[in-house]
Amino acid sequence: MDICTALEQLRALQQRQYAYYHAMTILELDGATAAPRDTARGRGVAMGILAGEKHKLLSGEEVGKLLSFLKERKEELDFLTRRQVEELDRSYVQLSRIPAEEYMDYSRLLSEASEEWRRAKEENDFPAFRPALEQIVAYNRKFARYYDPDKRPYDALLGEYERGMTMDILDGFFATLRAGLVPLLRKVAAAPAPDMGCTAGHFPVEEQRRLSDELMAVLGLDRAHCAIAESEHPFTTNANNKDVRITTHYYEEDFLSSMYSVIHEGGHALYELGVADELQYTCLAGGVSMGIHESQSRFYENIIGRSKPFLTALLPRLQACFPGRLSGLGAEELYRAVNRVEPSLIRTEADELTYSLHVMVRYELEKKLIAGEMEVGDVPEAWNALYREYLGVEVPDDRQGCLQDSHWSGGSFGYFPSYALGSAYGAQMLDAMEKDVDVWGGVGRGDLSQVNAWLREKIHRHGSSLTPAQVLENACGAPFDPKYYLDYLTKKYSDLYRL
Amino acid sequence: MDICTALEQLRALQQRQYAYYHAMTILELDGATAAPRDTARGRGVAMGILAGEKHKLLSGEEVGKLLSFLKERKEELDFLTRRQVEELDRSYVQLSRIPAEEYMDYSRLLSEASEEWRRAKEENDFPAFRPALEQIVAYNRKFARYYDPDKRPYDALLGEYERGMTMDILDGFFATLRAGLVPLLRKVAAAPAPDMGCTAGHFPVEEQRRLSDELMAVLGLDRAHCAIAESEHPFTTNANNKDVRITTHYYEEDFLSSMYSVIHEGGHALYELGVADELQYTCLAGGVSMGIHESQSRFYENIIGRSKPFLTALLPRLQACFPGRLSGLGAEELYRAVNRVEPSLIRTEADELTYSLHVMVRYELEKKLIAGEMEVGDVPEAWNALYREYLGVEVPDDRQGCLQDSHWSGGSFGYFPSYALGSAYGAQMLDAMEKDVDVWGGVGRGDLSQVNAWLREKIHRHGSSLTPAQVLENACGAPFDPKYYLDYLTKKYSDLYRL
Repeated sequence: MDICTALEQLRALQQRQYAYYHAMTILELDGATAAPRDTARGRGVAMGILAGEKHKLLSGEEVGKLLSFLKERKEELDFLTRRQVEELDRSYVQLSRIPAEEYMDYSRLLSEASEEWRRAKEENDFPAFRPALEQIVAYNRKFARYYDPDKRPYDALLGEYERGMTMDILDGFFATLRAGLVPLLRKVAAAPAPDMGCTAGHFPVEEQRRLSDELMAVLGLDRAHCAIAESEHPFTTNANNKDVRITTHYYEEDFLSSMYSVIHEGGHALYELGVADELQYTCLAGGVSMGIHESQSRFYENIIGRSKPFLTALLPRLQACFPGRLSGLGAEELYRAVNRVEPSLIRTEADELTYSLHVMVRYELEKKLIAGEMEVGDVPEAWNALYREYLGVEVPDDRQGCLQDSHWSGGSFGYFPSYALGSAYGAQMLDAMEKDVDVWGGVGRGDLSQVNAWLREKIHRHGSSLTPAQVLENACGAPFDPKYYLDYLTKKYSDLYRL
Repeated sequence: MDICTALEQLRALQQRQYAYYHAMTILELDGATAAPRDTARGRGVAMGILAGEKHKLLSGEEVGKLLSFLKERKEELDFLTRRQVEELDRSYVQLSRIPAEEYMDYSRLLSEASEEWRRAKEENDFPAFRPALEQIVAYNRKFARYYDPDKRPYDALLGEYERGMTMDILDGFFATLRAGLVPLLRKVAAAPAPDMGCTAGHFPVEEQRRLSDELMAVLGLDRAHCAIAESEHPFTTNANNKDVRITTHYYEEDFLSSMYSVIHEGGHALYELGVADELQYTCLAGGVSMGIHESQSRFYENIIGRSKPFLTALLPRLQACFPGRLSGLGAEELYRAVNRVEPSLIRTEADELTYSLHVMVRYELEKKLIAGEMEVGDVPEAWNALYREYLGVEVPDDRQGCLQDSHWSGGSFGYFPSYALGSAYGAQMLDAMEKDVDVWGGVGRGDLSQVNAWLREKIHRHGSSLTPAQVLENACGAPFDPKYYLDYLTKKYSDLYRL
């Protein structure tokens, strides 16, 4: 084998991976948006086979030889090729450690567990879900060893979602946050609450669709490369940097729900649209981690989308979309309404200030479960105790408690912290951005071009060619520091609640 | 190898084929309906690879051995398995002649050509589409040799859409048709034309969407397994018999256009939904040929959908969908309006009587292009000349001329004749059906259940387990005979125009 042949094989391998990825992405999107209701079975048959084929691509002996050959010639490879080899090799090693039998059993378990979780949640019956969750925890503990035998198991799992993330970093991060947020929250709770009535009304889907178009235009999303569809739960997916899709869900009595979904998913979409062309069809094509991805979505949703300048610029457009309903509304009133703080039970509906506390509950439980320091049977009680401690709310039942999220039934342990990390990354990016450009002047005119350009240059274009920590440090000129997030929240909410 | 292992391999092979087919079907659907405008390139890369992988499935040496093994044990196989082996073996022989590289390049070309055609049509710019079309014609001429080196190239292409169809048969069929239709058309043209003003008005897309829902209900389409979307050119596609999609296109000044698209595509959909479960995930799963497929779509569109009993039953629903606009309309008036004969420019909007003449234009051009007797650059002029000769109309621009159909950009040469054949098959089926059930009594009550049941039993359930000729003869008790079609048209239009 010569180096040119090897490079061509490397390119072809990644392009084949891309083809399977593209197909599965669009099949999943189709299933959640356009497909008729009772079509899951046939799609499942196809998806199972495509996933198996994609898996096979990286598990053959020939791929091992190709990667070895290229690793030995590291010095001759350009930066991006070296990074591709590193990433592929990492996956190859992981896959080769997981016995095919266990992988199959685990896949089967997960597909059953999803169904059991759905039923358990519906019937508020945690014990019915418990055996499946016990097995999932056991598999995750075992797989953590395959992923990285040198790390503590939960660190290995964290690394799957955020390369380099550890309990040490997260413990520090969450301790800082908790120390700052809990007293702040107490003060906010004692202050008078803003009025939500000012945004009430009936908002037909057709009108909300026009608002979505307006929002996508304001965000600078290129509709020739980014479409919007409707699904039960909003999400973003992408086939490549020229083909990105967001979804939303419309509630006719609440236009804010879809509005903030569109802005949130729009942030994810801008990230994927901004990845450099040269990374397409390689394993470095997508956003680098869940944390960096959430930094983008939550930056647009909260830092921009819930700011007074943005809302001031948006208000006339809102009033034009919903004639006669928001005519008496002022920007200050809207600003206070969309930032109303209220400790609650459900993570996905939480406000910006309490959101991280929901994440911490899950983090604390996951750490103990994966370390083997807690029984699955003790989860509900521990969950409820932590909600009481962090958020000051009583959990009335497991449906609104430890059964609310789908993540564990899907096998995702180590994923939740990304949500809080993303928010914190975003605040640090804002600080750096403000030094470079006139963020709020532009936003106040409804012009996000400078914000978009900064993020594209500093974050988006790198795709997965840098690690999450490199991306952040590269953009901000300093390593991750949670103080920016705490400062941002303290300033915003002290001002909002006149503390 | 024992027979059980071989049968299991046969099953797995077809299921893997299904997975690729499912993925490519949905990617194509997505491209035509939900995808953002400028996304063809990445989709083309993925489709090219998936097509290549599907191609590889049937081109390996092992498959050849498997099929040989099973062919030698033909007597031990049940009917369906034997048919699967026959069909797979036919494809195997064909595919083993097509170099994988060419096959992949062609798939990529088609995916890009679709986008180019769309833009060329929009901008009335045939020269922009010409290079892609030249390549597609060249591939088709080459592939025709691979399909069947013993046949004339265009015969080989015809056989891909309608097994056993040849230019000799079609030349005869079209000659018969023209001999009967031209004098009839002359008489019709001399008779007073019905008034189209009675269906004029403004019909917002939202209201037309509701009409589509009504029509799908009347047709008996199960919405849990059949969805409707919107695309430039209406079509039907299916992943399996539980997942079928139709599309339509709405024009706000003309509700009849989408109405008849929905009925037409609904006929295709009923066929696919009616294929037997036992054929799913095998190579016998879909409708058997384009001709039989068009017999179903055009049966519902014209024979049922443009009949007086159907329109009588539908009229109150139309009036309810478009309040205030069709209130003075009578069933007889509507019947005469939707059957108005008028030589025109656009095939998909042509009346039943002139429709075959549109098909003949395309047939004549395809014959010459594939025989190498005409340059692609000469298509617009030749197209316009044939429209003048057959239909007596002047083509003002290519958008309304040779750029109107998507077929060529999709690589379909030899497909158009199926439309005329399908119409003729349908008339013959009606004659047989009328002997078995009270067709018009049911239709007049808006109840298509007996019609649907007859077609499901006689045609749909067989999928591709019988040949097109067997399906027709099996349903009608006699081989194909164009006289039924001529009789049907002569009777209908003599009556309508009181000749």
